[in-house]
Amino acid sequence: MCRWLGWSGQPVIVEELLFKPKHGLVDQSLHSRMGVETTNGDGFGLGWYGQGDGPGVYHGVAPAWGDANLRELASHIESHMFLAHVRATTGTAIQQTNCHPFRHGRWLFVHNGVINGFEEMRRELMLAVAPELFAGIKGSTDSEVLFHLGLTFGLEEDPVAALERAIGLVEATAEKHGIENAIQASLGVTDGERLWAFRYSTEGKSRSLFVSAEAETVRELYPDNARLQRIRGEDRIVVSEPLADLPGVWHEIPESTVLLVQPGPDQQRPFQPR
Amino acid sequence: MCRWLGWSGQPVIVEELLFKPKHGLVDQSLHSRMGVETTNGDGFGLGWYGQGDGPGVYHGVAPAWGDANLRELASHIESHMFLAHVRATTGTAIQQTNCHPFRHGRWLFVHNGVINGFEEMRRELMLAVAPELFAGIKGSTDSEVLFHLGLTFGLEEDPVAALERAIGLVEATAEKHGIENAIQASLGVTDGERLWAFRYSTEGKSRSLFVSAEAETVRELYPDNARLQRIRGEDRIVVSEPLADLPGVWHEIPESTVLLVQPGPDQQRPFQPR
Amino acid sequence: MCRWLGWSGQPVIVEELLFKPKHGLVDQSLHSRMGVETTNGDGFGLGWYGQGDGPGVYHGVAPAWGDANLRELASHIESHMFLAHVRATTGTAIQQTNCHPFRHGRWLFVHNGVINGFEEMRRELMLAVAPELFAGIKGSTDSEVLFHLGLTFGLEEDPVAALERAIGLVEATAEKHGIENAIQASLGVTDGERLWAFRYSTEGKSRSLFVSAEAETVRELYPDNARLQRIRGEDRIVVSEPLADLPGVWHEIPESTVLLVQPGPDQQRPFQPR
Amino acid sequence: MCRWLGWSGQPVIVEELLFKPKHGLVDQSLHSRMGVETTNGDGFGLGWYGQGDGPGVYHGVAPAWGDANLRELASHIESHMFLAHVRATTGTAIQQTNCHPFRHGRWLFVHNGVINGFEEMRRELMLAVAPELFAGIKGSTDSEVLFHLGLTFGLEEDPVAALERAIGLVEATAEKHGIENAIQASLGVTDGERLWAFRYSTEGKSRSLFVSAEAETVRELYPDNARLQRIRGEDRIVVSEPLADLPGVWHEIPESTVLLVQPGPDQQRPFQPR
Repeated sequence: MCRWLGWSGQPVIVEELLFKPKHGLVDQSLHSRMGVETTNGDGFGLGWYGQGDGPGVYHGVAPAWGDANLRELASHIESHMFLAHVRATTGTAIQQTNCHPFRHGRWLFVHNGVINGFEEMRRELMLAVAPELFAGIKGSTDSEVLFHLGLTFGLEEDPVAALERAIGLVEATAEKHGIENAIQASLGVTDGERLWAFRYSTEGKSRSLFVSAEAETVRELYPDNARLQRIRGEDRIVVSEPLADLPGVWHEIPESTVLLVQPGPDQQRPFQPR
Repeated sequence: MCRWLGWSGQPVIVEELLFKPKHGLVDQSLHSRMGVETTNGDGFGLGWYGQGDGPGVYHGVAPAWGDANLRELASHIESHMFLAHVRATTGTAIQQTNCHPFRHGRWLFVHNGVINGFEEMRRELMLAVAPELFAGIKGSTDSEVLFHLGLTFGLEEDPVAALERAIGLVEATAEKHGIENAIQASLGVTDGERLWAFRYSTEGKSRSLFVSAEAETVRELYPDNARLQRIRGEDRIVVSEPLADLPGVWHEIPESTVLLVQPGPDQQRPFQPR
Repeated sequence: MCRWLGWSGQPVIVEELLFKPKHGLVDQSLHSRMGVETTNGDGFGLGWYGQGDGPGVYHGVAPAWGDANLRELASHIESHMFLAHVRATTGTAIQQTNCHPFRHGRWLFVHNGVINGFEEMRRELMLAVAPELFAGIKGSTDSEVLFHLGLTFGLEEDPVAALERAIGLVEATAEKHGIENAIQASLGVTDGERLWAFRYSTEGKSRSLFVSAEAETVRELYPDNARLQRIRGEDRIVVSEPLADLPGVWHEIPESTVLLVQPGPDQQRPFQPR
Repeated sequence: MCRWLGWSGQPVIVEELLFKPKHGLVDQSLHSRMGVETTNGDGFGLGWYGQGDGPGVYHGVAPAWGDANLRELASHIESHMFLAHVRATTGTAIQQTNCHPFRHGRWLFVHNGVINGFEEMRRELMLAVAPELFAGIKGSTDSEVLFHLGLTFGLEEDPVAALERAIGLVEATAEKHGIENAIQASLGVTDGERLWAFRYSTEGKSRSLFVSAEAETVRELYPDNARLQRIRGEDRIVVSEPLADLPGVWHEIPESTVLLVQPGPDQQRPFQPR
């Protein structure tokens, strides 16, 4: 059911987080320890801010662990903010247009989870998308529709309020159809400056989601770890599963919570669909 | 804008029609002579009736001319009825779910042409699809939506009447939006027993479409052509472009006309969207 | 390190063995229980004898579990003899030319295992291939070179003697280079009439390999299993891992042994590289 | 038979040269005007120097005109030196390992052309590759073998002398086999600082190759062309076909000649295989 990783901080070569850590995201594509599925081999995506206008997006349908181009890009792209995602399909086709992150203007969106009964509700949810945004839906996933519902409700102005409404709509629609546990959603959203990480599920048993501790804490905890000693300032990693067994480094984001990573103090607050 | 070929008749190894003729469909993928584009390199599809239940479908995103698997399948699949299609996208993604033929139950559908202004009308046309068929739309093409509109209007009972209504709806929607020349459509539809070939465009200047002459005529015209001497009984080829320069072998299907190839005498009649 | 399956017997629709059994080969691509790796997601191949001349081959680079075309082919191809293979690369590229089965004329060849130190020995082993066969090496795997060594030593006349010499050469070359445990090899070879299954490794701890029991035995053991009741005559399945937990149905092929499945009584004899 | 483009100069976003010119390289993939084939749809490659260590390489098997990832990378990668290549296979498989540029350490290599009779000479030419470089040959093209012959003869020290020897060896081998017109070769070679462009063929009728004029000349010729006004200093484009019909901007590189683009005055001298 997917794993994702977000980075916000000093510019880094992407492979530092995808490939080099012992349990980096690409390793998670083959050996996930906390996911519903151990294998996330149904495609990969990377969205990054760096050179050129707006975010760039690379979508691959091959498993991340064997994608030669991904390895090249990861070792030759530097970014201060990126989202990466490995996919385990819940049934929809393995194609680039179904790979995360989804993009709209300057915004990127990744989702780990599922809308239950999506096939049954797809038409109704797509109808709720603003007509002028409809043509932007290129694939067939529940995640892309959720993103467009968010955009419909003003994600570009207030991501939290917009996704509360979008998920509220999904839950209301599911209830109407008699579908239980409407949604599982670990979400990452960014505009290149700020990064929102959401952890929510209708049943209150959400997919795991972690954020790295303050730079200073990390450095003090592991004075002999060369990689961690390079962490500084406001560097933050958000990830579905810890990249390594490092007690003290990873803080679980609580249930029904949204974390905002931004310049200055980060914020955490309850997330309540309506 | 795509090229297609349909075969109805004695069981043949598929490559006899795709690869072996001088100007077979795979050659047309690289060197189309009558198409809007000379290159149809944005994917390929084959749907056939033979072993197993219902039609099998092979969809490839690589150009037909270089697809090693297609060459294998074509030389190892025998079928009495098949549709093959080479694609030149008018903008939608190159992915298997956008490759023709589309399938519903025992039915196959191919389209050469375009719905003009589709991006603008997509939402409205998708809404007109019967809700219970909505989940069957897996890709993002105009062609697949057209097929589902046909199914909505009863294609499985009466393909001609259903597609007259479907295309009529497209034209009415286009008119409402001030879009001219709503549709270009050379269509192939089959249930494995009968094959319908439609040639229609709003502006009355439709893509080319040809059907082969009666077996006896073909054999008499070319007594020294070994391949053509094997044509017999009710064998029929329908194709966007003649497979070779053989005067007398290829009859153009007229404008605004549908041809029904079936056991017993074939039928041809006007096609009038409403 | 790959898993494979061979069928010899009455004509069957391929999916009966790849997809339908509880632990069929496609399930093994995602959840292997006896392999060195649990995931075999680096490509797939099917070689079959049926319609058309000689064996057809389908090679896919996507994981078998998510390959829509594979599902189509498996449900629409009938064959009395086929080899299927799911790949877990030991380092060489994921590309169609590296997918098994490899083919030469009427012959198919699959390999589960590895030549240790292949990168170091590749040039030397390729030089040992008969010059007229050299151009037939299209990919970069150890397996394809092993097949061509077998062909060089007369595989088409006597597969067992030829592979004893080929593997003997690999072992001698490894010894010269100071490489231990030269080869792991569970091999399947067929000409469409007979099927050879080899189990051998230099260290004497070979990958698992099983053959199904006589049809009568299978039917008597499981009188209520509809699928197994259809087994008859000389039907045989050879497979890296049992397709289901059915005590009595699967016989392990012993170490350093080759099994020949053929019309009439099968044969089993020691396999001794020289 | 391929088309290629090299850039050396100020850092540019890659799409400025691949996509934006009227007849940029991606347009040449679909509508080549000077090539042997009009379609170069059998894969694409980009090698660039920028962020990260050494050159990055992106290889795609889809036609360049329809590759969504290529469009993303081109608009988000900035580089002062890159080589791009669109492929039309002369028979070898369409796979990433057959895509140009080939890389060795800091070096990149592209080839437009063919070694005639390569299948017949492949074994002999591969044997001439230094054993320690043999494992670096990952694909099956003539071009990659030519590159490795160049490396064998010291390409990293003196590219011109090394390729004179490599091509001389190819010609001598062809002569021994009675093969005429041994090689067609428009070659691009770079170490990230300097760019060598070779134009040579045994028969003296080489594929076209052009270099852009001095920046000052270009700006004076087209004072109203905003793109060309940005050309400055030592910026140079080397390309198989002019990117636009701009008299005075494109100088043909003569037959049997190698051009060296470098900091300071460029050099041009005869190229004579031995």
